[in-house]
Amino acid sequence: MFCINCVEQLMIKKIMFSYQTLFNFTQSVFEKIGLTEEEARQAADILMRAELRNISTHGLMRLPEYINLWRNNRITTTPVFKVVHETLSTALVDGGKGLGLVTAPKAMRLAIEKAKTAGTGWVAVRNSYHYGIAGYYAMMALKEEMIGISMTNANPLVAPTFGLHGMLGTNPIAVAIPAKKQPPFVADFATAPIARGKLDILEEKGLDAPAGLLQDREGNLTTQSGILKESGSLLTLGGSPEKGGHKGFCMTAIVDILSAVLPGANFGPTVVPTLGYVKDKTSGEDKGIGHFFGAIRIDAFQTADEFKQYMDQWIESFRKAETIPGHDKVIIPGDPERISEKEKLENGISVSKQTLKKLEKIANDLEIPFFA
Amino acid sequence: MFCINCVEQLMIKKIMFSYQTLFNFTQSVFEKIGLTEEEARQAADILMRAELRNISTHGLMRLPEYINLWRNNRITTTPVFKVVHETLSTALVDGGKGLGLVTAPKAMRLAIEKAKTAGTGWVAVRNSYHYGIAGYYAMMALKEEMIGISMTNANPLVAPTFGLHGMLGTNPIAVAIPAKKQPPFVADFATAPIARGKLDILEEKGLDAPAGLLQDREGNLTTQSGILKESGSLLTLGGSPEKGGHKGFCMTAIVDILSAVLPGANFGPTVVPTLGYVKDKTSGEDKGIGHFFGAIRIDAFQTADEFKQYMDQWIESFRKAETIPGHDKVIIPGDPERISEKEKLENGISVSKQTLKKLEKIANDLEIPFFA
Repeated sequence: MFCINCVEQLMIKKIMFSYQTLFNFTQSVFEKIGLTEEEARQAADILMRAELRNISTHGLMRLPEYINLWRNNRITTTPVFKVVHETLSTALVDGGKGLGLVTAPKAMRLAIEKAKTAGTGWVAVRNSYHYGIAGYYAMMALKEEMIGISMTNANPLVAPTFGLHGMLGTNPIAVAIPAKKQPPFVADFATAPIARGKLDILEEKGLDAPAGLLQDREGNLTTQSGILKESGSLLTLGGSPEKGGHKGFCMTAIVDILSAVLPGANFGPTVVPTLGYVKDKTSGEDKGIGHFFGAIRIDAFQTADEFKQYMDQWIESFRKAETIPGHDKVIIPGDPERISEKEKLENGISVSKQTLKKLEKIANDLEIPFFA
Repeated sequence: MFCINCVEQLMIKKIMFSYQTLFNFTQSVFEKIGLTEEEARQAADILMRAELRNISTHGLMRLPEYINLWRNNRITTTPVFKVVHETLSTALVDGGKGLGLVTAPKAMRLAIEKAKTAGTGWVAVRNSYHYGIAGYYAMMALKEEMIGISMTNANPLVAPTFGLHGMLGTNPIAVAIPAKKQPPFVADFATAPIARGKLDILEEKGLDAPAGLLQDREGNLTTQSGILKESGSLLTLGGSPEKGGHKGFCMTAIVDILSAVLPGANFGPTVVPTLGYVKDKTSGEDKGIGHFFGAIRIDAFQTADEFKQYMDQWIESFRKAETIPGHDKVIIPGDPERISEKEKLENGISVSKQTLKKLEKIANDLEIPFFA
């Protein structure tokens, strides 16, 4: 008898996996390359949180890149986490050439600890590498009744206003703010107008990028979604100055300075790229990329309960806002990702065939069991 | 004998005034309405700094608005500055219904004092009003070898992504960062794509606004520069979501929450407007607008000297960046304003005839000498 459900299940089986299956595999990869069990679990949690939150550009598809960095001795999997200098509310951390996935959770916990006594805690990190989704760290503050802040610099793909070449990263900021009855406000966004990963997807599908976001190596505007691989660059958020693009430049620059200049990591154009996008320019010292974390104890200002009620009012007033034709609601930052987490935990996570192939190769190379 | 220089001087005389002349008049206005001599000098310094920095939308043309607020008992000129709660690195300040020009400098000084002992200082202010240019406060940190941060919420003119009405202010952020040989990096920008004052100027000249920044009361995109006065609203920085406009919404929302929800001021759509732009909706409690200030001691991370050398490198690498055709340099945030300060201190400040007329009326009403 023909079973439509079985066929569907069979089709789904090829690309859908349970959260736990993927988590376990990811953890085993990290353990195999030298992370402790606890660090590997933590790193897997960050990547899998990206998958759950539908930010797959920062999930499993990053594993090959991390393995590459490790094979090429660009990172170590046994880094020494060193507090170089500290005050009551601050610390400068040297990540010891470790992955951000290892160093960043410790740095954010340090910020939270500082905030417990000083009201706020601020930790700048140098000598680190890719740390996954910025939002993960900001959200660590939520259960402590704190506002969490997280930012990082990255590969130079964004041209400053009037600049010809990519000199700044897509430099994300995340801010997580607790509410009472409402779920928390969680903004987690690249300060550039479009994520690199989204351009990859458009390119794969043979689609153009929206107008006004990209320029080629001569500085001509282009909609060619693959242009970053051909020495093109992203414009800043806002685009041209008449539309406020110089404000986007300011935002991206501020993230670069707080994340990299303040701790003494490689800043803007001196970041040694981790990707095939930017030509390797390994001249100069490699002090890694940098991150900046903040934890603000709510009751360092007003009582947490009062604030959270007030935050409910904020969220509700935007939730019930009148909308423009064709849209039924204003989206509260963090809502789509939270809905996605619930859905994917229940129904599983889809992995593209391309990524699966790369993960299988990793499993073979590292001699660990593959899940598919 | 015809003297071309004399004619030019005569023409200039009508609208150009020395910094000191305008400063003295502004101080006398503030003293006359009840500020102490010191507060009046401080408030005049903030407005005149805006004039010098070529941000005249936040200079003398604001005086009539402040007088209006005072006449209508929306502000008091003898406010009590009250620290409601504090920790080692934070304070919550109630501005006591004072002008931001009076309250904000004290709040920023408090942040700087906190940073001296705790490494960083963070002060949130409620029950305040317009505070002039955000950059003034951020720059107060520079001479202390600190990074200064300043932000405020404002009249609801910006619609959230997919929203029909203005619910958020143009909510500026300023960040001032010291360098060594290079002048400091000073970013001071509304998080909305275009300043309200710039739209006023376009409207006065009968010019359209750039496309993609404004919508009318039905949610249709428009280039009508006067649309805010007809229940239209500004889009967020970036515009539509495909161009990253939701990131602009996040930025503006974060400023609103830190500046207003955290201290307990009126947030977003509940801000009681100070201007003719938004219909008066005085229902609900008026806890003023709010500000958020930060001071980060550089040597709470690394030595100030090391950081400032590194900051020089950052600035220099952008200063010498290759540019797109038609532009000869990348503009470092703060450069145009610094050049303007020098030029206007030497050559004087021009005041429009419209503003002059309003200032003359203020002088007559308050029975103080007019300067023109």
